[in-house]
Amino acid sequence: MDKIIIEARVNELAPRDENPNVPFLPDEIVRDAFACYEAGASIVHYHGRTADGAPEHAPSFYLETNAGIRERCPILVHPTLGYVANDTDAMGRFAAVEEMMKSAATAPDFAPMDCGSVNVDWWNPGAGHYDTTDLVYKNSTATLMHFADRIKHYGLKQYLVSWNVSFTRQIEAFMTMGVIPEPAYICFCLTDGIMLAGHPGTPEGLDAHITFLPKDRQVVWTVVNYKGNLFALTEKIIRAGGHISIGLGDYPYAEFGQPTNADIIARVAEQARALGREPASVEDTRAILAMPQVKIAA
Amino acid sequence: MDKIIIEARVNELAPRDENPNVPFLPDEIVRDAFACYEAGASIVHYHGRTADGAPEHAPSFYLETNAGIRERCPILVHPTLGYVANDTDAMGRFAAVEEMMKSAATAPDFAPMDCGSVNVDWWNPGAGHYDTTDLVYKNSTATLMHFADRIKHYGLKQYLVSWNVSFTRQIEAFMTMGVIPEPAYICFCLTDGIMLAGHPGTPEGLDAHITFLPKDRQVVWTVVNYKGNLFALTEKIIRAGGHISIGLGDYPYAEFGQPTNADIIARVAEQARALGREPASVEDTRAILAMPQVKIAA
Repeated sequence: MDKIIIEARVNELAPRDENPNVPFLPDEIVRDAFACYEAGASIVHYHGRTADGAPEHAPSFYLETNAGIRERCPILVHPTLGYVANDTDAMGRFAAVEEMMKSAATAPDFAPMDCGSVNVDWWNPGAGHYDTTDLVYKNSTATLMHFADRIKHYGLKQYLVSWNVSFTRQIEAFMTMGVIPEPAYICFCLTDGIMLAGHPGTPEGLDAHITFLPKDRQVVWTVVNYKGNLFALTEKIIRAGGHISIGLGDYPYAEFGQPTNADIIARVAEQARALGREPASVEDTRAILAMPQVKIAA
Repeated sequence: MDKIIIEARVNELAPRDENPNVPFLPDEIVRDAFACYEAGASIVHYHGRTADGAPEHAPSFYLETNAGIRERCPILVHPTLGYVANDTDAMGRFAAVEEMMKSAATAPDFAPMDCGSVNVDWWNPGAGHYDTTDLVYKNSTATLMHFADRIKHYGLKQYLVSWNVSFTRQIEAFMTMGVIPEPAYICFCLTDGIMLAGHPGTPEGLDAHITFLPKDRQVVWTVVNYKGNLFALTEKIIRAGGHISIGLGDYPYAEFGQPTNADIIARVAEQARALGREPASVEDTRAILAMPQVKIAA
């Protein structure tokens, strides 16, 4: 069985009310990226945040954070394009990456493509209603083709997010077109709790994704549970040959007190080792995903 | 086992190139609705079309067609809201229904709610590319709540379309909120061929829907294969207690020559009877779905 790629999803748009260890600012993210690297993660994914936790789309945030991570350790860097919180056109959503590509010190290794559109309103399970009613996460085919083109141009690796089977079928179509090179790195975004947009974080929810992976194509897959406890599935994922993307960005993991991101990564690494899969190093991850060579903008 | 509800999906946006029997104009749709009723259908679903087949959103088309169907037979009437071809706001998309509700002669029995958002670009399997790249079918939570409110106000039955598991989870949330009354009538929109937006029209594609039906809720489900041959699944659906929505709107059924919509309905009815399920009459269908009482606008 392959080594397992562990990605630290350090902050997303998570609040600090249940766990104060969610990093917001660049130096906090850099510190967590290093600690997660030491604990066994080979990729770090983060969102720009202001000091009070609001989404921050300014390219300068990403330049500073990427450069800070690069100075500390070789962990692979995977910034967001801003999710539905950055609801501009395709060029606007990729603008921060274009800035990052002007220097090797600030270039990331991945850029994400959420391969479809989906309603992502916040569900309030206690009150039994939606707290928002207008959040349509739109990623048109044309937008995705623009992202794919720029990602290939810069020698980055596409990080392909699938929220449901419609997304996976679009990924397969893009593989047929050559828009997505092999191996495709697909992240199944399961969701629970206050987010109903993905499949539930259950064995059935995961199986209903895996069943529809493109046949006769090279695919590597990882799993997130956005707003749910992924440890309900980690054994299944590890045994099935999948990879794991996890952190306080998704869920506070209050079951373990107030863990840090590195605490969560260490738990995954320990479980993987116990089941016979060693955490992939950065170089292992580059090999498993056949990472291209990054090209800095002229 | 319950009787089986057979819905005739007579035209959608289908061309006539493979089968010239697709009805476009009101008198053609009325004729097909009657023939399908005689063959065993209890619901007819149609889209407004111009003489050359383009989408027609004018309320007058729907008034004329509904009135014509009502004069001929008691089949239950289920018009479209215009799909992605009618990409206006929620009020605009419901405008034709508001007009229909001004008279018992023109009122329908169902109005649809596609319970989520999804990319619906046209795939070209021969060329291996998308023929369109900007078709995002947007149904925000706020839009769906507007539709639900107006549908309940008029005593119509909600026809709930699910393209993937994200849609089904939104349906479950709406049932928790009371936005969708029980029993919910859910249509799984599988897709094949030139449309990749839904689950594939395979046993696995259907199972990956059924698994996520709301637990402990009254639900009645039917199945479409938009752009694929639903007969690959009709036996499975009939045995599983599901219902069937089918017609030349989805697929030309050239396997049978150039069948009419009524020919397709007759085939489904024959197969259902052979497997022990009698086609539901209009009154049976009203009972199975607990159809409310239609209220004409004051």
